[in-house]
Amino acid sequence: MDLLIKNIDIVTMDDCNKVIKNGYIGIKDDKISLVSDSLPKGTQWKEQIDGKRKIAIPGLVNGHSHSAMTLMRNYADDMALETWLFDNIFPVEAKLTEEFVYWGTMLGIVEMLKSGVIAFADMYMFMEEVARAVTETGIKANICKSPVQFFEDGELKRLDKSQGTIDYYNKYHNAADGRIKVFVEIHSTYMFNERTLANAAALAKQLNTGIHIHLLETAAEVESSNRDYGMTSVEICKKTGVLDVPVLAAHCVHMTDSDLEIMKAAGASICHNPTSNLKLGSGIARIPDMLDMGINVCLGTDGAASNNNLNMFEEMNLAALIHKGAAMNPQLMKAKDVLKMGTCNGAKALGFEDSGMIKEGMKGDLILIDTDKPHLYPKTNPVSAIVYSAQASDTDTVIIDGKIIMQDRKFKNIDEEKVMFEADALSRKLLT
Amino acid sequence: MDLLIKNIDIVTMDDCNKVIKNGYIGIKDDKISLVSDSLPKGTQWKEQIDGKRKIAIPGLVNGHSHSAMTLMRNYADDMALETWLFDNIFPVEAKLTEEFVYWGTMLGIVEMLKSGVIAFADMYMFMEEVARAVTETGIKANICKSPVQFFEDGELKRLDKSQGTIDYYNKYHNAADGRIKVFVEIHSTYMFNERTLANAAALAKQLNTGIHIHLLETAAEVESSNRDYGMTSVEICKKTGVLDVPVLAAHCVHMTDSDLEIMKAAGASICHNPTSNLKLGSGIARIPDMLDMGINVCLGTDGAASNNNLNMFEEMNLAALIHKGAAMNPQLMKAKDVLKMGTCNGAKALGFEDSGMIKEGMKGDLILIDTDKPHLYPKTNPVSAIVYSAQASDTDTVIIDGKIIMQDRKFKNIDEEKVMFEADALSRKLLT
Repeated sequence: MDLLIKNIDIVTMDDCNKVIKNGYIGIKDDKISLVSDSLPKGTQWKEQIDGKRKIAIPGLVNGHSHSAMTLMRNYADDMALETWLFDNIFPVEAKLTEEFVYWGTMLGIVEMLKSGVIAFADMYMFMEEVARAVTETGIKANICKSPVQFFEDGELKRLDKSQGTIDYYNKYHNAADGRIKVFVEIHSTYMFNERTLANAAALAKQLNTGIHIHLLETAAEVESSNRDYGMTSVEICKKTGVLDVPVLAAHCVHMTDSDLEIMKAAGASICHNPTSNLKLGSGIARIPDMLDMGINVCLGTDGAASNNNLNMFEEMNLAALIHKGAAMNPQLMKAKDVLKMGTCNGAKALGFEDSGMIKEGMKGDLILIDTDKPHLYPKTNPVSAIVYSAQASDTDTVIIDGKIIMQDRKFKNIDEEKVMFEADALSRKLLT
Repeated sequence: MDLLIKNIDIVTMDDCNKVIKNGYIGIKDDKISLVSDSLPKGTQWKEQIDGKRKIAIPGLVNGHSHSAMTLMRNYADDMALETWLFDNIFPVEAKLTEEFVYWGTMLGIVEMLKSGVIAFADMYMFMEEVARAVTETGIKANICKSPVQFFEDGELKRLDKSQGTIDYYNKYHNAADGRIKVFVEIHSTYMFNERTLANAAALAKQLNTGIHIHLLETAAEVESSNRDYGMTSVEICKKTGVLDVPVLAAHCVHMTDSDLEIMKAAGASICHNPTSNLKLGSGIARIPDMLDMGINVCLGTDGAASNNNLNMFEEMNLAALIHKGAAMNPQLMKAKDVLKMGTCNGAKALGFEDSGMIKEGMKGDLILIDTDKPHLYPKTNPVSAIVYSAQASDTDTVIIDGKIIMQDRKFKNIDEEKVMFEADALSRKLLT
């Protein structure tokens, strides 16, 4: 066998939510080959990690991000949504090139890996560069490409670019040893129209893949959808076939009962982005209702320009807290359910069905949390410790497809200093 | 001069909210003697710190805690308030002795120092032990003692113990080179009655000190106050003289307009505990209204049993986010106002009027944040970076009264390993 992690507390997140104290995890090739409280005799291991005072959990999955927006971190805060977007973000984004997106994404990936993220869903521009950064770093990603080009000569035209999406899909889907999944991007129902929504849905069906979409993030979208389509954004998605394929829908803050029923019936996944929804004043999504209905809800950071980090520990903490407070009910959003949102629900939503649990036969995608810190003593409930007490910086080791990407917070094959340097220099060029 | 910090970005939090890039901070004895963008020639320094890639901010102040409750961290979560309190916390607290409180407080202090906290307000039992831990570690604290013993032989009796509070005040107020302030504890209006409230207020007046109180944390308190006093908790505090002295009122979740007017007129300080209020389902306090009115609002963690850490970076982040989301207004709770709540407003509320700003003549109470981390690149707005992007673990150096307590995350005079070991062992004894 290849790798043995011993003396480790394991939060498996398997179907029985099993927690093993002082156990063993074995990895062969890219898969988990052993999860046990005792070590079978006679097996030889090429490499061993002592897991004493550490907790193993499935790697975190960031269900919605625009990673390259790290370049705009802390650039524009505490302002009205329109001022933020039209006067600050859009003018900067108009200056982006391949180089900016590559290094911005690299910075985002380095930050995410150091925060225990093993896979992320990304939606942005120059997506070839995102694929390149994912390939080079060893992380997993669900990336997407829009079949519509919105503007030409500054005018909103919604031009058909389906062939670009088909080529992108053919080039990258299941590339990087299967670490990449490609979905079709639908930015939103308000940037598309009925024809382009139907075309995108047909394209996803033709490619046998899913769709990543921003859905009902703001109250303004509720109004515009009613005005433009005479129905809710969810209803127009249903009508145009968008919900006939696997859907990863970000935000979903303003959903009617009927919208939720449609999402549930379609088997769509919803990505909750608590920091971004709060920071932009979008509102508080009906997550407890969604979980009650059995909808697959995962967690995401959104871009660093509206967060301002890519820290899934903070998203788990927030998700566990805000719905209790808003509903004045401390029994909502239990720690184990939130950890499930941050791990296996995310893996499922992104199309990595063989990830998200520490279980024999699943991919070797897991992280080790260093609990030898004052804020993680005493050693009581490991699930509560991860959701309520831990910081992203407690991530000690990141293993993806059985490969050690980071150990003792040091990367094996990524030049972290160079990434920070390049991104900082480019950001200064971009923001001045 | 004693200590020079050079090449440092400084968020002064002084009256003009000045930010100095690549500047200098000088410290002589226990006070800040220099804050400048240039270094006066000819001055000799005993010790120098290179502040390159670091940000200096005033040390954080935790305005409300029960530090020894670290022993109950992650012990009881996600349950109804009554189940949590009566079936889990109270039975454990009944077993506490001096030893438990000492080591639990030590664990809390070590956690807080490593999170950039230079002062905290504490309310608990065996307060002699809290004073001992504060004295030994070098942190500052506002500690308090109740003039009322609630129970005897299991019966609620509200016995007068004023002399104990007087003795405690005489022994500890301004002790440890002025690092300790002693207030009178009023647990809450519902554990006191009209007579004991008036007595406690008179005692605080007699000692010329302030009062630390839990005020209107839950909707249940609104009801009980109306039932027991025929008025709100704030109104009975006013009637009994509680608001005639400096008051540090924790929570204040359920306040009427009139309650807020009374608090404002009294010059009372309010401590917002966002994590605890959310986690216990208490609700969301009217913090934006309080700030608009000019009330001095600070931030606190509450105890680790309802949080589950003592992480003021998380409290700042939450305070900046939740009110924007709840009111759907991204312009509320700007980063600079939240950082003020976490630093100088807290120092003022605890009675450390000479702390909370990096300004010549103020006490040398400051922390250095290490920004050489992916999640703190690129270097744009340092105030946003601290409130929205940073983690507690980014605290590199803690200086209190001009003394370096922690540098490069290592303590000068605290045996961190021993504290974690002792607290862990005692917690196992306590919780089984």
